[in-house]
Amino acid sequence: MTTRIVELRQGILKKNDELARSLRQNFTAAGVLVLNLVSSPGTGKTAFLERTLRDLRARGSRVAALVGDLETDNDARRLAASGAPVRQINTHGICHLDAEMIEKHLTGWEGVELAGLDYLFIENVGNLVCPSSYDLGEKIRVALLSVTEGEDKPLKYPTLFNSADAAVITKMDIAEACRFDRELALRNINEIRPGIRIFETSSKTGAGMEDWLAYLEEQRAKRSS
Amino acid sequence: MTTRIVELRQGILKKNDELARSLRQNFTAAGVLVLNLVSSPGTGKTAFLERTLRDLRARGSRVAALVGDLETDNDARRLAASGAPVRQINTHGICHLDAEMIEKHLTGWEGVELAGLDYLFIENVGNLVCPSSYDLGEKIRVALLSVTEGEDKPLKYPTLFNSADAAVITKMDIAEACRFDRELALRNINEIRPGIRIFETSSKTGAGMEDWLAYLEEQRAKRSS
Repeated sequence: MTTRIVELRQGILKKNDELARSLRQNFTAAGVLVLNLVSSPGTGKTAFLERTLRDLRARGSRVAALVGDLETDNDARRLAASGAPVRQINTHGICHLDAEMIEKHLTGWEGVELAGLDYLFIENVGNLVCPSSYDLGEKIRVALLSVTEGEDKPLKYPTLFNSADAAVITKMDIAEACRFDRELALRNINEIRPGIRIFETSSKTGAGMEDWLAYLEEQRAKRSS
Repeated sequence: MTTRIVELRQGILKKNDELARSLRQNFTAAGVLVLNLVSSPGTGKTAFLERTLRDLRARGSRVAALVGDLETDNDARRLAASGAPVRQINTHGICHLDAEMIEKHLTGWEGVELAGLDYLFIENVGNLVCPSSYDLGEKIRVALLSVTEGEDKPLKYPTLFNSADAAVITKMDIAEACRFDRELALRNINEIRPGIRIFETSSKTGAGMEDWLAYLEEQRAKRSS
């Protein structure tokens, strides 16, 4: 039975990869930079994304977000407060987003055209394991890690960090209360993914957001040049 | 392909349930109380378990632990500091433990006999989704949630909380720094699983541990009566 499952899983991933490739071509053609945000539940993806959407809008950028959860549309409602168009994807028991869900939710999204966007953010289901295997057609995969989670997460979930283009440390405002060992966390991230860009942020105080926004703009500029 | 996957998944779960049932019979016959600890990565399962093992040993109980992780034996090494026998299960990419892994790691565990134990703790892989579907033969499933994760986790991951026998809130020592809304968290847990026993704990200060240990002893007494 294990062999059959492995074969089926490979088939599903292959099909997903093909669809993701075609999505990526569409994103490139439309000139929209797509990011896939992955972390454990409770890392603060939604708070970080809410702040990112608000800050980018304040700079005149056109942004939108797809947000994945097993159940509830709490996150979409929170993110909509930023003023950006947001669409919830409920996976009903599936522990990750896949390319097909993205394609489906891009279709018929009222008032949103890919070509009219500068950035599209995809907030994945809170899970450090399965989302790593599913390409969503994104240009940039972002692994988030909060100061409360333990500095060894990159070593324990190497696939995610190894497939990420950028790492964001969240909740820096409570780093001291959590006795967060910054040097150790940075060392562990770098051990799994040497040279990866790391942002140390707080959605509460705004710390680190300037660097993060500059990175986003730099990545967009790279695309259009 | 989806139908085939669903059928295969049902087959796997059915096989797992059968093995779990036989494990549960063995556990009951041996007179050992088995607990399955499930939470997000970074909730503090290992710190909580380390303290539980140490405190139970100090009271004269015979305890052991199996600990699941995708990679590394960091957690087994941390838990071994309690003096209890601990065995690491590396799942190498699988996002949950299953009954077969438990059976395999109980076999040939040097110096450990089920009949010689009062408690066996199983620390699952950090994941709020898939571990909910896999019965490990445990008597008590414990869902852990830290004050840093957001009070809406029970609503967003209902299957785990709905299948749990007890809920443990961890890191209460930093509740204030995280602006943890205690009433809301308790209400959300109770909405998904009315009347579930809830423990508010801190592995750092020891808060709530007395209640938790009393619960464990009460559950053991119930079994042998």
